[in-house]
Amino acid sequence: MATPLRVTVWNEFVHERTNDVVKALYPQGIHAAVAEGLREQLGDAVQIRTATLEEPEHGLTKEVLRNTDVLLWWGHAAHDQVSNKIVKRVQKRVWQGMGLVAMHSAHASKIFRRLMGTSCMLRWREAGERERLWIVAPGHPITAGLTGEYFELEHTEMYGEFFDIPAPDELIFVSWFEGGEVFRSGCTWRRGAGKIFYFRPGHETYPIYYNPQVRRVLANAVQWAAAAGSPYIGEGRNIPEPLNPIANPLQAHEDLHR
Amino acid sequence: MATPLRVTVWNEFVHERTNDVVKALYPQGIHAAVAEGLREQLGDAVQIRTATLEEPEHGLTKEVLRNTDVLLWWGHAAHDQVSNKIVKRVQKRVWQGMGLVAMHSAHASKIFRRLMGTSCMLRWREAGERERLWIVAPGHPITAGLTGEYFELEHTEMYGEFFDIPAPDELIFVSWFEGGEVFRSGCTWRRGAGKIFYFRPGHETYPIYYNPQVRRVLANAVQWAAAAGSPYIGEGRNIPEPLNPIANPLQAHEDLHR
Amino acid sequence: MATPLRVTVWNEFVHERTNDVVKALYPQGIHAAVAEGLREQLGDAVQIRTATLEEPEHGLTKEVLRNTDVLLWWGHAAHDQVSNKIVKRVQKRVWQGMGLVAMHSAHASKIFRRLMGTSCMLRWREAGERERLWIVAPGHPITAGLTGEYFELEHTEMYGEFFDIPAPDELIFVSWFEGGEVFRSGCTWRRGAGKIFYFRPGHETYPIYYNPQVRRVLANAVQWAAAAGSPYIGEGRNIPEPLNPIANPLQAHEDLHR
Amino acid sequence: MATPLRVTVWNEFVHERTNDVVKALYPQGIHAAVAEGLREQLGDAVQIRTATLEEPEHGLTKEVLRNTDVLLWWGHAAHDQVSNKIVKRVQKRVWQGMGLVAMHSAHASKIFRRLMGTSCMLRWREAGERERLWIVAPGHPITAGLTGEYFELEHTEMYGEFFDIPAPDELIFVSWFEGGEVFRSGCTWRRGAGKIFYFRPGHETYPIYYNPQVRRVLANAVQWAAAAGSPYIGEGRNIPEPLNPIANPLQAHEDLHR
Repeated sequence: MATPLRVTVWNEFVHERTNDVVKALYPQGIHAAVAEGLREQLGDAVQIRTATLEEPEHGLTKEVLRNTDVLLWWGHAAHDQVSNKIVKRVQKRVWQGMGLVAMHSAHASKIFRRLMGTSCMLRWREAGERERLWIVAPGHPITAGLTGEYFELEHTEMYGEFFDIPAPDELIFVSWFEGGEVFRSGCTWRRGAGKIFYFRPGHETYPIYYNPQVRRVLANAVQWAAAAGSPYIGEGRNIPEPLNPIANPLQAHEDLHR
Repeated sequence: MATPLRVTVWNEFVHERTNDVVKALYPQGIHAAVAEGLREQLGDAVQIRTATLEEPEHGLTKEVLRNTDVLLWWGHAAHDQVSNKIVKRVQKRVWQGMGLVAMHSAHASKIFRRLMGTSCMLRWREAGERERLWIVAPGHPITAGLTGEYFELEHTEMYGEFFDIPAPDELIFVSWFEGGEVFRSGCTWRRGAGKIFYFRPGHETYPIYYNPQVRRVLANAVQWAAAAGSPYIGEGRNIPEPLNPIANPLQAHEDLHR
Repeated sequence: MATPLRVTVWNEFVHERTNDVVKALYPQGIHAAVAEGLREQLGDAVQIRTATLEEPEHGLTKEVLRNTDVLLWWGHAAHDQVSNKIVKRVQKRVWQGMGLVAMHSAHASKIFRRLMGTSCMLRWREAGERERLWIVAPGHPITAGLTGEYFELEHTEMYGEFFDIPAPDELIFVSWFEGGEVFRSGCTWRRGAGKIFYFRPGHETYPIYYNPQVRRVLANAVQWAAAAGSPYIGEGRNIPEPLNPIANPLQAHEDLHR
Repeated sequence: MATPLRVTVWNEFVHERTNDVVKALYPQGIHAAVAEGLREQLGDAVQIRTATLEEPEHGLTKEVLRNTDVLLWWGHAAHDQVSNKIVKRVQKRVWQGMGLVAMHSAHASKIFRRLMGTSCMLRWREAGERERLWIVAPGHPITAGLTGEYFELEHTEMYGEFFDIPAPDELIFVSWFEGGEVFRSGCTWRRGAGKIFYFRPGHETYPIYYNPQVRRVLANAVQWAAAAGSPYIGEGRNIPEPLNPIANPLQAHEDLHR
């Protein structure tokens, strides 16, 4: 593709400044590590910017969103501080075709919950256990370049079922956790003309975003999520003139509710 | 089933009091015609109550919702007058297992849009044209008792694609309209433990809710949508103790964010 | 329901007569234990017959199938001995509305593979490990009466992903295995007017079909899988006369291929 | 993409040699017109070969299939003349990742029916009526470059519901027919690692494969259907050694069935 994809990596950027463990792992912020991974995997095929909670309009102005093909989202401690106005703006932009990649604890973000219509709640445990992500959709572009039937993360937070999401359009990964749970770790949905991918790995206290397979999946997801968009999404269209003749119409009333 | 299903039919009940055409068709309100149809089809298998916009809490108190297995919803002119607080309450009750049947212009209701995560907008035309509803899921319980490959409504409002909904879990009916459009007229989704059915027919200026096949579909849908529910939906569950031993855990930090 | 469901439990009935371990567990055959479980759970709501490989037409005559609402299938060692003619007959009956519950190693049966269109192959290990079946569709009728978020089998054969099936219409259970794998253990599909449920538990060397939760799921599945059927499935329908007028038809030729 | 996609267009190539109307429309065969359309749309991004029924092994040798990323299929009068051996070979190659685009009357081909598991039968009428294909998945790559909410074919054969297919993974187009029917005209499924697209337009007595929008859709579909493939699809994998320790295994027997 000649034109690079325009990617925005959004991060609340809170833990990295308040907790020493996280700061040591992600000194420039999780967004910087994610952006670095995308550049490493995709090179000139992407143009990346980052945005954070504390910026004006959380860095998600109309201008930025209009020029974003795919938005990645990381949040955890400050979901409630994201303004409803910006959330609605992002949601509408997804309907019109912007891709969204929700990472890890973004399952509980306002934008993800609003697009899903469910609570998005889950079981969780922070014990640093082993996770094994099994590929259940081999051949899907989001799994391109992964060799083998699974990949592993040695230490991670556990997320377990029941994960309260709508049945995914496509289920890509299912995780096995050493402590006994399973999880639908990679899921896709469409909302309007926009494509959404949820990807579970990514806790702030483990170096997940430096893992080559996680980076590969995120890079694949960004390419998969880009879509052409559609101008008429989000608006009702009254079409008084039929496309084909109506033999025996019945107008019951004079412009009842317009 | 020994215990009758507890059904609540909700209607904004506006047009029937402000417009003579609608008043003549539905003198007691659309909710009364829908309730009558359910009683006719299901007899003692259902206990029906109705609720309307103007009642306190729109007739949807916690008590009423707790004792509702399936809620039917009709609204059109007054979507914005439904309080957000009640909408959230209904949404949460759906997650916990209450069925929801959204009828016709309820596509644009707050509760339906919130559960879908999309705009739910569509094409429309009010010309009283013919609609033919084709069954695309024969054998589905919602189509039980319909004979033939389709059924027809002689005069109706047109709704056309693109209908901005998430891909349905099950597509039951696709409509053909004389004026040239098609529409996904019967769709199911699950949200949490709750089952949702959207059914297109039902415009206020045509006697749709007296049609025997429409009544049959609504009765089927009510029976289909009832579910046992689930107590843990909507809440996160922290599970500090693993179900199985973890060989080599790594606690990265001391209670970072709790 | 006044009329009892007509259920046929099919079993190849081979291991139970050739292996002492299996014989001790299922002296009358796996089909007898499954039938007993259904009777225990559903009582008069079902009429059950059994059928086995060695019977004429494998016990699946046209008469038997015409009078079967739901067929349960167990096979393992003798998939290849099932005649193609009978497989086609069963497939056609499923299209017309007969439910099918495929149990455990029936994943590799001719009838299941033919209805899926895939290889249905999987990973497996026979080490007698623990399995935990997580409910990922709470509120689904197939999970009715299961309390809690999962249930367990202490010793069982492992089946692991990638399980080569079409994406299920509904995913009901995901299994965790102690040895490290996950599996989509409860899946539904529709084929024609027929409903299909695959349920993983059931190895012949463990007493799985005496487990109360397994029995509950099978009983639920039988009730779920029954469907009204549809007379026109499986046949093309030439409709020379249009339902609505065609303004400007173009008959390109004289009965080219009829 | 640096490496061109390797595309094979298969056609039974019967009508074009036996019927004057078809011969006049497609003098080199439908496969030639389809191949020309792909070259026109995709240029150097594809390498195209064609294959027909009368060639040895129908032109689908192991060598050809191994070197095919996406196979397009057109058949109508001679479905039964396609050898079962070749059909199985194609099916297995789809499982391993080859894309398949089934065009028009290929709905009744052996390969399509085998991958679907259903009868794939439908209503039909050859009256040269108008078809309008509505986009129900805006933003999907298969719709890229289509402007507007629909496109039209002025004269075509009608295919109507109920179309006996498994519920599509993604529904892309729904057709409106002047004579009164609707049809799911663009559908996707995955089987193993392979992606499948069914596209309805294409009757041999109308110049459908010269239509620019049809050509655009087919070109999009070819790009969409290409997948990386997966080496382990189609084979069972016995894994005697667990990935994680089993606390209390129970080997019920000595190698019962191996």
